Amino acid sequence: MVEVRAILFDVFGTVVDWRSGLIGQLTAFGAARGLTADWPALADAWRRAYIPSMDRVRRGEQPWTGLEALQRVTLEDLIADQNIKGLSGAYLDEINRFWRRLPPWPDAPPGLQRLKRQFTIATLSNGDVALLVEMAKAGGLPWDMVFSAELFERYKPDPETYLGACALLGLEPEQVMMCAAHRGDLIAARALGLKTAFVSRPLEHGPGPRGSGPAPAEAWDHACASLEELAAQLGA
Amino acid sequence: MVEVRAILFDVFGTVVDWRSGLIGQLTAFGAARGLTADWPALADAWRRAYIPSMDRVRRGEQPWTGLEALQRVTLEDLIADQNIKGLSGAYLDEINRFWRRLPPWPDAPPGLQRLKRQFTIATLSNGDVALLVEMAKAGGLPWDMVFSAELFERYKPDPETYLGACALLGLEPEQVMMCAAHRGDLIAARALGLKTAFVSRPLEHGPGPRGSGPAPAEAWDHACASLEELAAQLGA
Repeated sequence: MVEVRAILFDVFGTVVDWRSGLIGQLTAFGAARGLTADWPALADAWRRAYIPSMDRVRRGEQPWTGLEALQRVTLEDLIADQNIKGLSGAYLDEINRFWRRLPPWPDAPPGLQRLKRQFTIATLSNGDVALLVEMAKAGGLPWDMVFSAELFERYKPDPETYLGACALLGLEPEQVMMCAAHRGDLIAARALGLKTAFVSRPLEHGPGPRGSGPAPAEAWDHACASLEELAAQLGA
Repeated sequence: MVEVRAILFDVFGTVVDWRSGLIGQLTAFGAARGLTADWPALADAWRRAYIPSMDRVRRGEQPWTGLEALQRVTLEDLIADQNIKGLSGAYLDEINRFWRRLPPWPDAPPGLQRLKRQFTIATLSNGDVALLVEMAKAGGLPWDMVFSAELFERYKPDPETYLGACALLGLEPEQVMMCAAHRGDLIAARALGLKTAFVSRPLEHGPGPRGSGPAPAEAWDHACASLEELAAQLGA
């Protein structure tokens, strides 16, 4: 039985609540400037475009481009599609940075503080380094290290991301656990020999049928409903 | 006047006391195993070999090699030179990791905690990521980000290290301050447009004439005798 030494965390959806965070910031932004739009629809459409935009980079259809640059292009398209008026380029730059200020799920800061006492804790996110660092400062996320797709110029679930983080930590994959609220992330990590922890986030996509529901009954090493529960399971 | 948003810290000598840390660990290691040697001489010789070993990589005489791998080769040579007996390969591996457990100068953790409230604080060190992460956990160094030569496959003072860290933070060089106890590091950073903070560490090389003495009278943006003093100067 190999001991786990480090835990890598997916961030968007797993550690932070992107949907409430985007809608809240968009709504406040619109109210302050007298702009009206269906902000929840914009947030959801922006998130839906997220994986396809990275996939174009992953397939080599465009050279390496960081997430904020991808998100900025997507945002401009969505504003046009949804016929939202009154947003200058400077406003779009400001909105694009809302991802840097997504709030943690309430259990994340205390859960990470507990896990940090026993494990090295790091992000492994498709977000840019600057985004993740600013988010951590604003939200009180006590990372030991910030691993980003940007460091490898590869997006998850490409193997170079998981294996790159393990190598930089000087650890074998079996000494590292991937924690995520998404099956695809954990399946990719498991295939490379990492341990897995599934955290269910039923409200990630908001209330109702689009929620991801309870933890799927798969053979993850751990399954939990919060990072505090994960800490308890791991004796941290 | 451009506002500084982030501070990058040299680590060995600036944030941690490599000499006392190495001598203390070597002495305890030797005592526990009944081995005798001039441990201070070994520590000093190891440190002297540090820059020449990186320079061979910087000049392209050998492909990219991380610092711990360089230090391991150097250590083996020094053990032979100094005719120290009784050290197996496993012992040398253990000694090589003493760099991961170098203690902070006493002002470093409280000074960094203060600076972290107002600035993004990160390492910019020639040490490997795994070394820096373990050192931070052991010593209570609250980095927002760990930048290592390993991420750029270049050693300081190559420009790719300073500019790479600025780019990953999404900041212009003039928004970033380099803090170090060594002139060469600050001269390289200043030439690229970064701000500079010199911290004097007169005991870095031990007591006596090899100490680096008081801060040289150069046009650094800040000069101080501790990271707490730097925090006070910056109003943090």
